[in-house]
Amino acid sequence: MGARKPNPESAEDRLIARHFRPLATHPGALGLIDDAAVITVPAGHELVLKTDGVIAGVHFFPDDPPETVARKALRINLSDLAAKGARPLGFLLSIALTREVVDGWLARFTRALGADAKKFGCPLLGGDTDRTPGLVSVTIAAFGTVPRGTMLRRDRARARDRIVVTGTIGDAALGVILRRDPKAAARWGLDRRLREHLLRRYLVPQPRNALAAALRRAAHGAMDVSDGLIGDLAKMCRASRLDAQVDIARVPLSRAARTALAAEPALIDTILTGGDDFEVIASVPARNVAALRGAARRVGVRLTEIGGFAAGAGNAHFRDAQGRARTFAQASYSHF
Amino acid sequence: MGARKPNPESAEDRLIARHFRPLATHPGALGLIDDAAVITVPAGHELVLKTDGVIAGVHFFPDDPPETVARKALRINLSDLAAKGARPLGFLLSIALTREVVDGWLARFTRALGADAKKFGCPLLGGDTDRTPGLVSVTIAAFGTVPRGTMLRRDRARARDRIVVTGTIGDAALGVILRRDPKAAARWGLDRRLREHLLRRYLVPQPRNALAAALRRAAHGAMDVSDGLIGDLAKMCRASRLDAQVDIARVPLSRAARTALAAEPALIDTILTGGDDFEVIASVPARNVAALRGAARRVGVRLTEIGGFAAGAGNAHFRDAQGRARTFAQASYSHF
Repeated sequence: MGARKPNPESAEDRLIARHFRPLATHPGALGLIDDAAVITVPAGHELVLKTDGVIAGVHFFPDDPPETVARKALRINLSDLAAKGARPLGFLLSIALTREVVDGWLARFTRALGADAKKFGCPLLGGDTDRTPGLVSVTIAAFGTVPRGTMLRRDRARARDRIVVTGTIGDAALGVILRRDPKAAARWGLDRRLREHLLRRYLVPQPRNALAAALRRAAHGAMDVSDGLIGDLAKMCRASRLDAQVDIARVPLSRAARTALAAEPALIDTILTGGDDFEVIASVPARNVAALRGAARRVGVRLTEIGGFAAGAGNAHFRDAQGRARTFAQASYSHF
Repeated sequence: MGARKPNPESAEDRLIARHFRPLATHPGALGLIDDAAVITVPAGHELVLKTDGVIAGVHFFPDDPPETVARKALRINLSDLAAKGARPLGFLLSIALTREVVDGWLARFTRALGADAKKFGCPLLGGDTDRTPGLVSVTIAAFGTVPRGTMLRRDRARARDRIVVTGTIGDAALGVILRRDPKAAARWGLDRRLREHLLRRYLVPQPRNALAAALRRAAHGAMDVSDGLIGDLAKMCRASRLDAQVDIARVPLSRAARTALAAEPALIDTILTGGDDFEVIASVPARNVAALRGAARRVGVRLTEIGGFAAGAGNAHFRDAQGRARTFAQASYSHF
């Protein structure tokens, strides 16, 4: 650009090179120097696409560590890929940063994001970085592959299928309460370790990608539990035009959640409708449950049968330990 | 859910059904009822992926009509697909709405988005809708396909290639000034029609997707001009390790831009570095320029040769009508 030749790289270019390029390990990311990424979907496979985001003050607390913000943003998308039976391929990242976000925050954010991208085999493909006078937000579009025609859908449950769920339910919702009300831990009789468990489950979801291939082989249908077990199961019932019958006593709870529930039985509503579980609920024919349970054991994921699907009008029914029907005022979390 | 059976659909579900489902015309969108979308990439093809977003007060004015916000959000991504020679396949939408966004705003937004999705053959595949206490933002991840190995890259320009650019440069940057300073129109001698042209070019980009296939056949390399012609050409030079020589007098300007420039010659810096052009700059061997020009004429897109690439250290050089080298303090728009 003539004799003076100012450095033509913008601050944005330098920021991308320093923080994001190390994460762009996929050859199709082209080192983030191009307008777009380019990927090949393996022959006989389809691409599964999902986008979800987190906003400061809505989906995470503004003082959450950058590491957990990064992990949560990626993992909530990975959880959907797991529930669909898909193998992660990569992701696009769109991040809006406020003026207060310093270089150190971004370094910690991208380091944790890179560690998770490696752990789950889901590298950065491309992205968009902006300054905002609003709130920090992180939007991810994640991609996975499945053999053609095998993506697990929520409208494919069948009558007489068993209902199974991974991990434990309700931890994250209780973690949010603990975060907002520091006295809750004492009220619920939680020691430091149990309290930490619930707080951690809110901060860093554990997506079940290790079980995705086994789910694809064993299940007729599946979905991610993210808006609360009850509301999400109701969605699966509507989509599949089936009723579900669930025994509340069989819903898997962590020791921390069981302890809190014993102290405050009304918490069962929070546990079942609070959301942010990022577990998988699947519709599995009875003959496949044992095989899926074995696969889950091998990858260290808890798998619990909580009820079954049956012909019906598309409703989820819950009964308590005494066999009484239970209803819930708000079935699931809604932003609107 | 028992005898009382409250409506299990959340307000979020209803909002999606009302406003977004009509746009999800691709079978792989599954009517937006599932966690994810699923698409097949045609045999022998690759998938091109891009994400870009707009934030109120940063990329658009908060009082912009919802129709132009929708069109801009989609079109800035379509412009990248065009520059890469890709045929649009579909997009994911992530939208954060404030409490002030009423149903009528969203109806107008989605109607315009749907019209553009249809016009450009790029249907909605899935998305994520949130309320934010911050600013309205719209993030899109757009996907296109190219025959394997044919995506146009910015690092593939070759020495002796001609530099061509679509459309006109600088209109949007002048449109922003007009928007902020209503007296500028009189100062620049613009009548109502010329003023409207510049304002419109800022609000609604015209991505060159109609020319994508011809660009793929004719060009060695290409990129989207979105951060200013000078900065973007500098990026292409660095990536391709070539110098560029551009005649400023040959850079295509609209009648409105020429009128403003005649009144205020210093505007040339804004025109060449202001950004938001959403045109394509391509590196085309001289033997292919006529064919590309013919293809551009057939689809009604202006195509102009503005200079050429040559062996060099990776710098873009600009000379004025008198043949003098021109330098620019800030080569391109940067958010950081």
